[in-house]
Amino acid sequence: MPKADRFLKACRREPVDVTPIWLMRQAGRYMPEYRALREKHKILELIKTPELAAEVTFQPLSAFDLDAAIIFADILTLPEAMGLELEFVSGEGPLFHNPIRSPDDIRKLKPIDPAEALGFTLQAIRLVARELDGKVPLIGFSGAPFTLACYAIEGGSSRNFIKAKTLMHNETDAWHQLMERFADAAGKYLVAQVHAGAQALQLFDSWAGILSPADYVAYVQPHTRRVFDIVRESSDVPLIHFGTDTAGLLPHICRSGATVIGVDWRIDLHAAWRVIGEDFAIQGNLDPVTLFADIETIKEQAELILQQADGRKGHIFNLGHGILPETPTEHVAALVDFVHSYAIPAP
Amino acid sequence: MPKADRFLKACRREPVDVTPIWLMRQAGRYMPEYRALREKHKILELIKTPELAAEVTFQPLSAFDLDAAIIFADILTLPEAMGLELEFVSGEGPLFHNPIRSPDDIRKLKPIDPAEALGFTLQAIRLVARELDGKVPLIGFSGAPFTLACYAIEGGSSRNFIKAKTLMHNETDAWHQLMERFADAAGKYLVAQVHAGAQALQLFDSWAGILSPADYVAYVQPHTRRVFDIVRESSDVPLIHFGTDTAGLLPHICRSGATVIGVDWRIDLHAAWRVIGEDFAIQGNLDPVTLFADIETIKEQAELILQQADGRKGHIFNLGHGILPETPTEHVAALVDFVHSYAIPAP
Repeated sequence: MPKADRFLKACRREPVDVTPIWLMRQAGRYMPEYRALREKHKILELIKTPELAAEVTFQPLSAFDLDAAIIFADILTLPEAMGLELEFVSGEGPLFHNPIRSPDDIRKLKPIDPAEALGFTLQAIRLVARELDGKVPLIGFSGAPFTLACYAIEGGSSRNFIKAKTLMHNETDAWHQLMERFADAAGKYLVAQVHAGAQALQLFDSWAGILSPADYVAYVQPHTRRVFDIVRESSDVPLIHFGTDTAGLLPHICRSGATVIGVDWRIDLHAAWRVIGEDFAIQGNLDPVTLFADIETIKEQAELILQQADGRKGHIFNLGHGILPETPTEHVAALVDFVHSYAIPAP
Repeated sequence: MPKADRFLKACRREPVDVTPIWLMRQAGRYMPEYRALREKHKILELIKTPELAAEVTFQPLSAFDLDAAIIFADILTLPEAMGLELEFVSGEGPLFHNPIRSPDDIRKLKPIDPAEALGFTLQAIRLVARELDGKVPLIGFSGAPFTLACYAIEGGSSRNFIKAKTLMHNETDAWHQLMERFADAAGKYLVAQVHAGAQALQLFDSWAGILSPADYVAYVQPHTRRVFDIVRESSDVPLIHFGTDTAGLLPHICRSGATVIGVDWRIDLHAAWRVIGEDFAIQGNLDPVTLFADIETIKEQAELILQQADGRKGHIFNLGHGILPETPTEHVAALVDFVHSYAIPAP
């Protein structure tokens, strides 16, 4: 089987020769090549210069035997394009200078034309797709409405998300308007990414796991479904839903429109599959901190996950969250090679 | 039914008139009375002066119709007594100046005699138990070995717990020695609390939810079980296990020796009960951030949880984590009264 096919076949729950693997944040600070570029360019400069974004996208593909590329971009350029002033503050992470705090702030958000407002990422996708030339598939992505809304309301990351949840509970109409705007924008943005050359799409609802199942169903799920519905109208690329802390949400997340469900390490892979049922592919689920352990431990833990997949069709190996900045690169290489060396048992 | 009986009866899965409620961190910064005391005393001074700790313990009981008291103390005075230098740094939380980084650091930990090393909390328990005079039961508590080990190794809170998990994976013998020391100390400390007058005990494994189920079973569960076994040898008080992010760990947590399982809001109460089975009582599980919403929303969300309990014996209403510092006190009062006004359906 050509290596190029593994990832997409696994997404579609078709048989594969070995389990495909890619890693969230596979292009990032743990790589010396990336740090070297970051010394010369700010992060938004890397993202907004298509040639540089393409170069970063390729860095992990040159270093490791990965089965998919993911475009180097950031989920917050979408709300930025809609009018929120974004800054990446060294040591603190991203923040918005004009967070959303009222219905009036929501009305001021601009609808976007992705070709115009996010053309830099679409152009980067075109460059990467051309250079990849089918060697491995290219994944596009967007933030999910909920995670974008949390950032937009809190103005950055947050410990308890009090402002976001309180707007959600107390100003429910405004909340749904905000979520609809983000859902429409994310849907359009993802469609444009497919037109530019993305062959699979991941929706990052990284923070969905801060919600109770009832709140997820009432305040989030309809908008997540809307994003996937918009994409489905014009494309049949695999759709991946990603979140962390979602063990209790899985019965609902698998009804949000994705066909590949990302799970973190806080639930056994086979337990997650039991919950969502075998109609779905699963992406996951090694604890990223495991990559700091010795290589024997890494292999043991990876093997445990592969054993739990137990020959089911539709397992894409990944971490349960993004790779961490201090991760040793030789441990990443060992993980990728081990996953490829594992003989999938007959189903 | 005397109000005094509700909490303990629910812990034992006996019938109750209405659902008992207490709140984690019910004595704390959201109360003006507490903030007034904190202006005069540092937090460790409050904890280590039995009369002041007793006074703080009573503050929420005077303000709200709660069904249990919990002694005002901190889980980190135990590792402090064993030799770690503890400081509460304003705005940053607790930290240890000499964190554990090597097997040698572990050997330096002192075994403790709780009567001597933690006598201030035991004396506070005696004072509170005497003054309560059976009006409501008094809960004692300790940190669980894993959460204590994380604090001890990281030196404070942490985002990814890389140092703790890496010691756990790479220096497994040292890890188990550290966990055994904390388990023995926590077990002895809890027994001493019962002798002083605590009528139920909660083990805070607040951070267990950062682990995969396999890591929990291999590196944590035997030590948690040891703590509960030590208490069981001399007492039959109800034992509560508390953790957050545990939806995927519940099948294992319920085999760690507690009979009451605390669950956070990230899983539906009835789903959690389905996983652990009806031999256990459940404590939980309102999202603490819900207390920032309007009172109608708070009541709706509390009612949903009570409905999910569905007349099963053994529900203790609580938050899914500690009450947050800015929580409006009138919302707390409304929650407590609403829970007591809810008519438990016939089973």
